Amino acid sequence: MRQIDSGRVGWEPFDQLLIATGASPFFPDVPGGDAQGIHGLSTLQSGIEVRKAIDQDSPQRAVIVGGGYIGLEMAEALVLRGMEVSLVEKMPQVMGTLDPDMGALVSEALRDIGVALYLGESLESFDVRRGRVQAVVTDQRTLPADLVILGLGVRPNSTLAAEAEIPLGEKGGIRVNERMQTAVEGVWAAGDCVESFHLVSRRPFYVALGTVANKQGRVAGINLGGGYATFPGVVGTAVSKVCAVEVARTGLQEAELQRLGWEYVSAKIDSKTRVGYYPNAGPITVKVLAERDSGRLLGGQIVGIEGAAKRIDVLATALHAGFTVQEMIHLDLSYAPPYSPVWDPVLIAARQAAALV
Amino acid sequence: MRQIDSGRVGWEPFDQLLIATGASPFFPDVPGGDAQGIHGLSTLQSGIEVRKAIDQDSPQRAVIVGGGYIGLEMAEALVLRGMEVSLVEKMPQVMGTLDPDMGALVSEALRDIGVALYLGESLESFDVRRGRVQAVVTDQRTLPADLVILGLGVRPNSTLAAEAEIPLGEKGGIRVNERMQTAVEGVWAAGDCVESFHLVSRRPFYVALGTVANKQGRVAGINLGGGYATFPGVVGTAVSKVCAVEVARTGLQEAELQRLGWEYVSAKIDSKTRVGYYPNAGPITVKVLAERDSGRLLGGQIVGIEGAAKRIDVLATALHAGFTVQEMIHLDLSYAPPYSPVWDPVLIAARQAAALV
Repeated sequence: MRQIDSGRVGWEPFDQLLIATGASPFFPDVPGGDAQGIHGLSTLQSGIEVRKAIDQDSPQRAVIVGGGYIGLEMAEALVLRGMEVSLVEKMPQVMGTLDPDMGALVSEALRDIGVALYLGESLESFDVRRGRVQAVVTDQRTLPADLVILGLGVRPNSTLAAEAEIPLGEKGGIRVNERMQTAVEGVWAAGDCVESFHLVSRRPFYVALGTVANKQGRVAGINLGGGYATFPGVVGTAVSKVCAVEVARTGLQEAELQRLGWEYVSAKIDSKTRVGYYPNAGPITVKVLAERDSGRLLGGQIVGIEGAAKRIDVLATALHAGFTVQEMIHLDLSYAPPYSPVWDPVLIAARQAAALV
Repeated sequence: MRQIDSGRVGWEPFDQLLIATGASPFFPDVPGGDAQGIHGLSTLQSGIEVRKAIDQDSPQRAVIVGGGYIGLEMAEALVLRGMEVSLVEKMPQVMGTLDPDMGALVSEALRDIGVALYLGESLESFDVRRGRVQAVVTDQRTLPADLVILGLGVRPNSTLAAEAEIPLGEKGGIRVNERMQTAVEGVWAAGDCVESFHLVSRRPFYVALGTVANKQGRVAGINLGGGYATFPGVVGTAVSKVCAVEVARTGLQEAELQRLGWEYVSAKIDSKTRVGYYPNAGPITVKVLAERDSGRLLGGQIVGIEGAAKRIDVLATALHAGFTVQEMIHLDLSYAPPYSPVWDPVLIAARQAAALV
């Protein structure tokens, strides 16, 4: 144990121990990866550093590697800063947590704000001069860069636990039960360092999101204080945005269902966020995946303008409930012209899926 | 039967008949009630007439009678038209479908946009000169009026059915089963003319909302076409807005629970629509009612700025699912700073309620 203020290193006995070591952004092991001007983003401090670098060096050309949540949000931020922004993503679409057809809508949104997309390209190395990054080299081209943002996801900080012989799960996070207890008596873990349980796939799942971490921390805290609480698991809900376009997802996506061997139907509908004649009504696309035959809801994805994304919470709640799309048709969701068409877009998608199961 | 275009009146045999007579705004039977300048609002045509009256007569002083959805929406519209707007409501708060403490927030929102509120006052008569309304007379004062809007709710148009000896329900709407079948073979009914079933109280319920009517019409259509579909009922969801303030409710309110004799706990929390540091984050108040002991969710109400109201759909879906507030704590709702605090306000309210059951 190292005391942060004194620097003193020593041993400290404990009755109850909580491991909350979080996660770290993934830095790829490629030539030039340690050059100046290459930034990962995870903590407030790393955000401050990027901002400082922009203020000091006035970079003109930014390259973002990775088209996930961090990549999207940084693309928006850097475009708003007036920079020339490119984004490299090894998949054929950004937002790998969406199905490719829905990810394509997000790719479109990025292009619309002026981001140059290089999809299906892999990072190979960085060109470096005098310790500073000059360009990002992919398997297809060299992109000059004054600033590089890495958004390649995070990995759980579970090494400390592993070295203490606390078992990890199959996704690399610390394995915990519903009370956030590790396999070792008196040792608890919560947050981005642990493996979660996916309530739809009924399988281990790794997710590094503040809302999950916060709920897990509460459960761990109640338990290690002598109380009783459980965290049942997640359904994989997440939201992001890129300028005016909102993006949301929950449950399982097509690739996961295929891996699981589950048969499913898919319905994708275009609707409006408000009644068509109401000011600021705009497009929303909702995709719903349901189990073939039973109709059980398996997942949903939404891309649209303001007011679109938060609708994912209805699908998330329906996943927790184990609803079928047939049941969902009659959900008594709110309607008034400023808020929704008469049939909420989520219900239109459910209705369409119900006709296919 | 009367043919609308030819005016021909006669008898028409049928195999299957659908009654879709809708509802009519309630006009109070008080002196002067038939004067010019007094408007109810229900159809597109009645809206066009109010608009025409405003364009022709340039009324300065408008009095709205009734503080429900129509009253609120007309208050907004008339204030935006630059009129001096008063609102008379016989209850101590506007929005009788909210509990008084939540209704008070809406009353505040109305006052903030310049509406003069006369709460706890009953309409007694209208002062009329040369056939035109001059003032609204309440049990406490006389309010000069160039224009009067009545927003006193609607009544189901069920007289035709009643005269044909088709049984009505206890709320005055046509009684139908889950397939939208009346008690008479071959006669169906759907929309604002029928009585619904409330899935939380498990009792008959009358609601005149487009979203419910539309769903019922679909079910009736499938059935009378020889198919099979059921409409299970409603949970009482509704939304409205008054300028920047959004209002939403679902489930049962305190007065209903007291009438039913159900014991409940109530949690009301103030939070933000987005993470506090994010631009345009603003206040949201969420109230949740849960059954004492069991913790079963019974209802919810939301008042807040942009982004607040549609959150009611999570509570509505949870009502359909029969969730307890304890279960709701772990709903995997979406979080990102532009959309929500780390704990969605709905979950903060559920958590607080769970601590009370």
